[in-house]
Amino acid sequence: MHSDLDLERVRSAAQRIAPHVLRTPVLRHAPSAATQLLLKAESLQPTGSFKLRGASNRVLTLPPGVAGVVAHSSGNHGQALARAAKLLGIPAVVVMPADAPALKRSRAQADGAEVVVVGSDSQQRERVAAEIAAERGLFPVPPFDDLEVAAGQGTAALELLEESGPLDRFYAPVSGGGLMAGCCVVLRELSPSCEIVGVEPEDANDTQLSLAAGERRTVPPPRSIADGLRVRTPGRLTWPVLKQHLSRVELVSDAELEAAVLFALRELRLVLEPSGAASLAVALREGRGRCGVLLSGGNIEPALLARIVAAGPR
Amino acid sequence: MHSDLDLERVRSAAQRIAPHVLRTPVLRHAPSAATQLLLKAESLQPTGSFKLRGASNRVLTLPPGVAGVVAHSSGNHGQALARAAKLLGIPAVVVMPADAPALKRSRAQADGAEVVVVGSDSQQRERVAAEIAAERGLFPVPPFDDLEVAAGQGTAALELLEESGPLDRFYAPVSGGGLMAGCCVVLRELSPSCEIVGVEPEDANDTQLSLAAGERRTVPPPRSIADGLRVRTPGRLTWPVLKQHLSRVELVSDAELEAAVLFALRELRLVLEPSGAASLAVALREGRGRCGVLLSGGNIEPALLARIVAAGPR
Repeated sequence: MHSDLDLERVRSAAQRIAPHVLRTPVLRHAPSAATQLLLKAESLQPTGSFKLRGASNRVLTLPPGVAGVVAHSSGNHGQALARAAKLLGIPAVVVMPADAPALKRSRAQADGAEVVVVGSDSQQRERVAAEIAAERGLFPVPPFDDLEVAAGQGTAALELLEESGPLDRFYAPVSGGGLMAGCCVVLRELSPSCEIVGVEPEDANDTQLSLAAGERRTVPPPRSIADGLRVRTPGRLTWPVLKQHLSRVELVSDAELEAAVLFALRELRLVLEPSGAASLAVALREGRGRCGVLLSGGNIEPALLARIVAAGPR
Repeated sequence: MHSDLDLERVRSAAQRIAPHVLRTPVLRHAPSAATQLLLKAESLQPTGSFKLRGASNRVLTLPPGVAGVVAHSSGNHGQALARAAKLLGIPAVVVMPADAPALKRSRAQADGAEVVVVGSDSQQRERVAAEIAAERGLFPVPPFDDLEVAAGQGTAALELLEESGPLDRFYAPVSGGGLMAGCCVVLRELSPSCEIVGVEPEDANDTQLSLAAGERRTVPPPRSIADGLRVRTPGRLTWPVLKQHLSRVELVSDAELEAAVLFALRELRLVLEPSGAASLAVALREGRGRCGVLLSGGNIEPALLARIVAAGPR
């Protein structure tokens, strides 16, 4: 399947989803004379993350005869799928853990999705989602391990390069790898000499370990505050793409993530969630030259935002 | 001079400043089925406000032989002029009050401006700025009462309409009136039936009083938290434009401004300053139909942001 994720697939996705997603702005910040950061603010998408790109592309490429879509997600993927299904007028079911914030549940419901609450065990949620898919003829939309989902996410890099031109370096977070895989195939074609840097939390470094081992590795359940990056192993379909194209993976601590969230509030006037600020944290630490930085999402818990803002210097 | 501020002048400004400003995104939010808010996020401009548009246009239309620019401003205009002068490679002097936040001073200096600190009396600052202009051959750039400045600000409405099409209603803050005057001449030509609603703080309602009186009125020094909207009387050049085109002015309280700042953080993932959230506050209160909403800036004091976030529901 690997060779199927390519620039043409991403270009097709871009054309397909254009009416449904925001062409997010590329903000510029020069931390030094030698460095220009070109920041793609995906936090400004409706539902607050790049996930709307992949979800929309998947909903727009469903096989005929499908009655709707289903996903298990407590986070940005579930929100995005609910919105994409609403935009296209098809039913959606989102399976969420019992401990998911009430706000996320009510937002998915406000977009017309049916929310099914199932314990806090992710395997149980996966099973329930599969059962619902089978019983009701719904299409299960995975958060990353799907070529159309990954191609949709890659449209963010396509838009970035259209505005930035060739880059020296590109930073994006890596969780299951859908976003990064989609971006990799775009960057390798349109900015071939660009160094592609994946960013993971210190305790969710499955892709870094996998690259070192040459095969997929799994880490214990991460506790990083970057709740969107706690996937424990690279995706089956995304891994070969990452293995081929990723230059390296850099790790970030919780303290660096919080500092990057605060930096974004003050200097960029953007609300980012910790996962969404991971690439920024590394770009601020080491970036040189023309650096593309994918700011992936802005759905931060209000209590965490309050803590970060209160702790920052006045 | 009134007839000189027209759509053609704004179109010329748009072409002139395009390489130097951000084409800010138009975010969409539907608070009800009957209402679509189309939110022009000028808070994302470099230096954090629409002011870069007018400052850039003024710097790009200086008379020949000018050695540089000077402004008296403790706020967004000074930051914008410093950046515009840097972008165009000319010297800038910004006269600031002694009580201006250190951050604003250091930002103007980081953009290469010379900062002159003069007491906290605004008339004294004005006099010092005029003296510096005369002595050094610098061009004094006023914050609003200048046709090229106002034309530059109007480019925000031009971009908004290019994406939104005709609007039922348009909301923007009114301080000296440069932004609103520039927007008015665009809206009247390109969306003629659009209701144009100015927004002022309750105690900075000089434009509302002036409209009622049919001539310029002055209010006592306002104390609103919207520090960008504390101008006490409409501009000499902007007033005739506002008088001709403004449909009405609505007022906002400090509590409404704080609620709108919190709403923007949570629902739009944008950091807005109180002045920048004024139009949003009124649009959320009364908006119906297709409403353009100009979010003018995002330079909120860190301590105020912390207070608003801490007070909000978790």
